[in-house]
Amino acid sequence: MSRDRLYLFDTTLRDGAQTAGVEFSLEDKVAIIGLLEELGVDYIEGGYPGANPVDTAFFEQKRTKKATFTAFGMTKRTGRSAANDPGVQALVNSAAAATCFVAKAWDYQVELALGSTTDEHLEGLADTVRTAASAGKEVLIDLEHFFDGFKANPEYALSCVTTALDAGARWVVLCDTNGGTMPAEIRGIVGTVLKFAPGDKLGIHPHDDTGQAVANALAAVEAGVRQVQGTLNGLGERCGNANLITLIPTLVLKPYYAERFETGITPAHLERLTHISRAFDDRLNRAPARQAPYVGASAFATKAGIHASALLKDFSTYEHVPPESVGNERAIMVSQQAGKSNLLTALARHDITLEKDDQRLEKLLATVKQREARGYSYDGADASFAVLARSVLGTLPSFFDVEHYRAMVERRHNAQGEEITVTEAVVKVRVQGELLMSVAEGNGPVNALDQALRKDLGIYSSRIEDLELVDFKVRILDGGTGAVTRVLVESKDSTGERWTTIGVSSNIIDASFEALYESITYKLLKTEASQSSAVSTTARLAQKAAG
Amino acid sequence: MSRDRLYLFDTTLRDGAQTAGVEFSLEDKVAIIGLLEELGVDYIEGGYPGANPVDTAFFEQKRTKKATFTAFGMTKRTGRSAANDPGVQALVNSAAAATCFVAKAWDYQVELALGSTTDEHLEGLADTVRTAASAGKEVLIDLEHFFDGFKANPEYALSCVTTALDAGARWVVLCDTNGGTMPAEIRGIVGTVLKFAPGDKLGIHPHDDTGQAVANALAAVEAGVRQVQGTLNGLGERCGNANLITLIPTLVLKPYYAERFETGITPAHLERLTHISRAFDDRLNRAPARQAPYVGASAFATKAGIHASALLKDFSTYEHVPPESVGNERAIMVSQQAGKSNLLTALARHDITLEKDDQRLEKLLATVKQREARGYSYDGADASFAVLARSVLGTLPSFFDVEHYRAMVERRHNAQGEEITVTEAVVKVRVQGELLMSVAEGNGPVNALDQALRKDLGIYSSRIEDLELVDFKVRILDGGTGAVTRVLVESKDSTGERWTTIGVSSNIIDASFEALYESITYKLLKTEASQSSAVSTTARLAQKAAG
Repeated sequence: MSRDRLYLFDTTLRDGAQTAGVEFSLEDKVAIIGLLEELGVDYIEGGYPGANPVDTAFFEQKRTKKATFTAFGMTKRTGRSAANDPGVQALVNSAAAATCFVAKAWDYQVELALGSTTDEHLEGLADTVRTAASAGKEVLIDLEHFFDGFKANPEYALSCVTTALDAGARWVVLCDTNGGTMPAEIRGIVGTVLKFAPGDKLGIHPHDDTGQAVANALAAVEAGVRQVQGTLNGLGERCGNANLITLIPTLVLKPYYAERFETGITPAHLERLTHISRAFDDRLNRAPARQAPYVGASAFATKAGIHASALLKDFSTYEHVPPESVGNERAIMVSQQAGKSNLLTALARHDITLEKDDQRLEKLLATVKQREARGYSYDGADASFAVLARSVLGTLPSFFDVEHYRAMVERRHNAQGEEITVTEAVVKVRVQGELLMSVAEGNGPVNALDQALRKDLGIYSSRIEDLELVDFKVRILDGGTGAVTRVLVESKDSTGERWTTIGVSSNIIDASFEALYESITYKLLKTEASQSSAVSTTARLAQKAAG
Repeated sequence: MSRDRLYLFDTTLRDGAQTAGVEFSLEDKVAIIGLLEELGVDYIEGGYPGANPVDTAFFEQKRTKKATFTAFGMTKRTGRSAANDPGVQALVNSAAAATCFVAKAWDYQVELALGSTTDEHLEGLADTVRTAASAGKEVLIDLEHFFDGFKANPEYALSCVTTALDAGARWVVLCDTNGGTMPAEIRGIVGTVLKFAPGDKLGIHPHDDTGQAVANALAAVEAGVRQVQGTLNGLGERCGNANLITLIPTLVLKPYYAERFETGITPAHLERLTHISRAFDDRLNRAPARQAPYVGASAFATKAGIHASALLKDFSTYEHVPPESVGNERAIMVSQQAGKSNLLTALARHDITLEKDDQRLEKLLATVKQREARGYSYDGADASFAVLARSVLGTLPSFFDVEHYRAMVERRHNAQGEEITVTEAVVKVRVQGELLMSVAEGNGPVNALDQALRKDLGIYSSRIEDLELVDFKVRILDGGTGAVTRVLVESKDSTGERWTTIGVSSNIIDASFEALYESITYKLLKTEASQSSAVSTTARLAQKAAG
């Protein structure tokens, strides 16, 4: 049976950046692209080159491997040609393969916001499309306020669609900018648009202001559009954009859609869905929504209650999809078997091969669950998982022990009466029997501890020289300054590898130190293979000297 | 124009109680009924009398003033009559005016879970309805698994509907128990049911497992059902039930529905919506969802960005409903793009009125921009904005100065050889000329500083007694442990108000201290009006004493 191809367009890095409190660094953007490629979306809109230094730098090189790298911007301003419009040119000259320009489909907005005529705006739209297309870009047009505009003046809204397509746009995207349109209205209006434009050139861009962004996306798809725009975890201005993490499994797993449409998402992609959603929240430093469809910690949880007996007889009658299909798990009566296969997969990522009936697997599973109950989360801290696994399996070398540390921060006035802050840390470690004590200043207690810890690790110092801490995130798990603190530290080295470690404690300094310590341990593990003979020789010499 | 009456049925206290981590006390239930009556729903399902002591006690008296007080339970067991079934009798003898019994509409489930035949189950259903109806109760039947059951065996599912109605049920409620049904399927199946039963005797009970509970409720209403079941803030098992807080304003404010349906919700009820939603979260002791449709703190917030100029010219073109209609407010976030009009709006929120050409406005704008360039972000830290504004405008009282502070964290071995961490902070403040020095331990440096700072603030101590820190967030702005740290502290007090303050520094301790200091300052500002005369008297006395 031939199915229509649906294209998935992610705008987390552009429209998602409009979320209150969200700001992406260049490193965030690179990491999020990694998650999006793991998910398998077709288009990744990376930002607005020319609008700010981060986005401009971001578009200086191609950042995607498979997905179409897309830049966002405005159609040309009135009074100059697209060829002479610096905004348009910033997109055309960027490393993006596709350019998405926004135009106004509501006549009232054209006059209100641009102070130009609808004719001028249509001309600008056409000029912009032609300019970008002739520069070899795949061109998309976002029609802002399309549905409100259509209700006010259908003729003008439709002429935006046909003008863009006639000028050579690959896609025209119908935006529900205010998010107030009902699914039935979407169906009706898209139905009319289809009389003037083919569905495989139309996209939908919904917002969640009535809690129906996903339903609106699906209504538009049913009506005939073939591109859907959304964001990871529904990030976005106000109530957010359509949540791709919710939408994708519905499109792929529900026969109602799966029988009619195909996407670029494979079953293997889908099994990473829960991980991707949580890793994204970790990067935003926010707690994953427990009740999120498909990926929430509660999505397949049940208190049983009145359903208990039936549930225990046949889980599937109380689950609309199998939890493992989206990489999530059933939260009642955790099936040990399922837990074990998940673990084996995770271990294989770190080149640890175990038999399914290895006793230590049981022990590792129990340890992970126990630690997760205390606030650890290995979804976003794979390097800590690797360290923990080797520790439980008994294959973690004992590199060095920390005997003592101390961090002190003091705010006072100096001799000149100026307010200054002094931060100092002391760390005492035992490396192969030798006690090494270091002191360092830093611009914060964690920085000072990091400096002191790395100042002298004896025989290991040379192996951590290229270790660099690139990110440091703190989350308080139950609120208040007295609550449990979870620290995630992201590190990288000269090989380009990045890894994340985790520390959990009621004390932010202890939690940070744990994550720092594990990052160094992971780095030493990484370099163990090549160094092992050298180390054992050095260790013997060191032990002799110490003895 | 005559409109159909839609009935709203709340099941927060029954199905909502299935949420992981939620348990209602009797006092909770009474308080939540108060919120539900303020909202104006037609039916309130209070629980399951006979299932547990709280629910049994709860149904000993009528708990609602206006809404129909409803009890939930199971249809009679096989092998005994409804008159002799203690479960059915617990409902019949309760103070409830309506009784809602659950029956199984999926033949597979009848056999699997009940081990009885579908004929026996239908007989039991009819007997239960007749028994409750003849005892004077309004009878509802929840048909569990209706949509999955219909797909498997439409004939049996439909016979459940007609059997219940024939026996005298006022309502038959079609439940999407697993939450996996698509809106289009709901429309189709409800369309078939309507050939056998009138829409004004049918209800819909959706779950949010594909993020479409609200859309499914609306699809069923469009297809013809006239009762909708849901919960406050979408509480419920797994991903939750249909969110009435989202659904109600859509039904009341959107012409697409408002022109065809009327509900028991008045405009005055609707203006309490945001309050009701947040008060409910407060009772559950959880942070309100910022992105919640209609009532979230971000629901009418915008970073402006590309929409800035149009937005400032006409708010309504970027708002799908007026925020005040649901008791929420517009939040134009003060950020990089902020202009003077944004500032004036933000100031007005804090009862600061300035003329547009006030010189100080320019200065405040420049200060905000300067600080945002250093990493401050007033988007999510409105209380810090209020403090900053008063400081720049010269209207911030000088409450107290911090002369010195110190925090120390030490990890060492105690006399028993156990690893312990000791954290201690010292703070020296000057209050109205008097030097006060406090020391405190804490389970982290910020907690210790918080304790020490609040230990003795002299004349202000009584005014901050009910100040509570509820959240503490840390974000590193450029990565690494040596980068700039942004700390957000969320506080609340006994009035229920929550506010957020911000601190930025390369030192996490300095940043945290700044945010703590500003939270206390904001709290003192809040209580200034009522206290000002008392303070100035005390201050004079204190200065006299100090002199």
